[in-house]
Amino acid sequence: MLNEMHIIHQLKTHFPQSIGDDAAVIPAFGNESYLISKDLLVEDVHFRRTYFSAANLAYKALHVNLSDIAAMGGKAQFVLCGIAIPLHQAEYAEDFLTAVVAACKDAGVILIGGDTTRSGDKLFISISVIGTAVTDTIRYRSTAKVGDAICVVGALGHAHLGLIACEQSLPNLLEYKNAFLCPKAKMDEGLWLAQKSAVHSMMDISDGLYIDLKKLCLASTLAAHIELNNLQPSMDFKHRCAQLQLDALNVMLSGGEDYGLLCTVDNAHYAQLAEDFKQKFDYPLHRIGNIEAGTGVYFTENAVPKHLILTPFSHFGESS
Amino acid sequence: MLNEMHIIHQLKTHFPQSIGDDAAVIPAFGNESYLISKDLLVEDVHFRRTYFSAANLAYKALHVNLSDIAAMGGKAQFVLCGIAIPLHQAEYAEDFLTAVVAACKDAGVILIGGDTTRSGDKLFISISVIGTAVTDTIRYRSTAKVGDAICVVGALGHAHLGLIACEQSLPNLLEYKNAFLCPKAKMDEGLWLAQKSAVHSMMDISDGLYIDLKKLCLASTLAAHIELNNLQPSMDFKHRCAQLQLDALNVMLSGGEDYGLLCTVDNAHYAQLAEDFKQKFDYPLHRIGNIEAGTGVYFTENAVPKHLILTPFSHFGESS
Repeated sequence: MLNEMHIIHQLKTHFPQSIGDDAAVIPAFGNESYLISKDLLVEDVHFRRTYFSAANLAYKALHVNLSDIAAMGGKAQFVLCGIAIPLHQAEYAEDFLTAVVAACKDAGVILIGGDTTRSGDKLFISISVIGTAVTDTIRYRSTAKVGDAICVVGALGHAHLGLIACEQSLPNLLEYKNAFLCPKAKMDEGLWLAQKSAVHSMMDISDGLYIDLKKLCLASTLAAHIELNNLQPSMDFKHRCAQLQLDALNVMLSGGEDYGLLCTVDNAHYAQLAEDFKQKFDYPLHRIGNIEAGTGVYFTENAVPKHLILTPFSHFGESS
Repeated sequence: MLNEMHIIHQLKTHFPQSIGDDAAVIPAFGNESYLISKDLLVEDVHFRRTYFSAANLAYKALHVNLSDIAAMGGKAQFVLCGIAIPLHQAEYAEDFLTAVVAACKDAGVILIGGDTTRSGDKLFISISVIGTAVTDTIRYRSTAKVGDAICVVGALGHAHLGLIACEQSLPNLLEYKNAFLCPKAKMDEGLWLAQKSAVHSMMDISDGLYIDLKKLCLASTLAAHIELNNLQPSMDFKHRCAQLQLDALNVMLSGGEDYGLLCTVDNAHYAQLAEDFKQKFDYPLHRIGNIEAGTGVYFTENAVPKHLILTPFSHFGESS
């Protein structure tokens, strides 16, 4: 069975320098580089038109790409929008394109091109965002260091709870539904973090913390130690998960599509950075564990090793 | 009904400077710019797996994008490959990705990123190519001038004949099938033409000469006069069309996916340029008419006005 990490591994053997981060890097002018993302959204895989308004879908399609740029410390500048449209969805597609224009203006980025074409019976969206970054401040997955504090920006598992709420047509749960339907990329946070030399590595959390952290560890050839006591879900989140017979911890670790940021920070500078972050953004830069020598991701609870059986989200419907 | 020209018109009202050419232009270093294309290919709209080998599909998916860069006078450098894969097509998709790698190496471009994800039951491909060009030599659709010779690089209608041959499982017709299955982008020709100041405007021929020339005229707010005597099909092409009860002229004017180049050339320099082109590439830069004041595309046959009823190809299955 085809697996994204397997594909990336295959491609890396052919193009070793260029594959595997949230966005590709090419030289720009002076000390700057361009960052280029490409994310696909497929109807009935990533979204259903039954509960995604054209406006929400446009916002999300743009922001999942903005998130890739943010995760590498770039400032998003330009957008290309490709869309393959089934004949019977012309009206929805037109609303979508109008909303893409609005979402681009809202995010301060310029739509510079794309492609529109016909599809059979599913809507297919391919957006690319081009950002700029000072080359020295670009952050990768492969540069975590032993001893780094593993930090998370943004809520964990909220989008997955929202997905379940949407799929099951549950009432209320608006905060979670919005986290799933129209996640806001952490553009300012990514740019700010990348400018701090204490931030050694960064990526966005799109496939779920556990899978994404595994990718960061693999790229850095290091291990991650997560202390589960640091993953404190809110009372409301815990309560909602219990109502849905979901394990809150599993949702936080495995739920995809939150589009927060995962970064590793020099341990000596974490406390100051977290204080500055809180001051600047009015919510915490949350420390959940440490980078160590070794491979893989392992957990402790109250410092006692804990084995978790997680069922991570994967694009190909299998555990990774 | 949704129509690509209508969509582009809508987008142009919001982002007037940036939409409508084969590729988007953003500043690079010094006197250079980047050109960025994005073309989507959808299973059973643009290709069928029954007669597209994974290798042909990969080659075509890359070259339709290389063609966009060539058409603006750029040199292709980098590729992003997005693919949404149905579970039951994993093997075909893996062959496709292997072939993309080979096609990139063959074309001298570097695969720098992309996205792989799951699809329902159709394969979706979204490739972007990034090229570089000296900013002053980039060619647009909007810069044709009155009196320009309208010129075509490459055969007309061959890909359409190949499409019909593939769809109807006809034997032989290999040349035409190859024109459809694995068109080679006119990379060297585009780069060479863009370096000649006599070449005023350029685009690729992807939707069929008639539609593409209409787009060039619209962008340049000028008219095109085509003398049909200049569209001389080969004996073999005429013969094959007759066998299939197709009007050869209509196929040449309306058949899509040839991925040749359409350019307009200063009349005073056409003869020399055509001679140099023939010398360099060993096939003709074919003159088919002239740019005039006015709007739209009109035809003469032996200098007598001729009204043609054409049924142009459109992404949305309607005449444009």
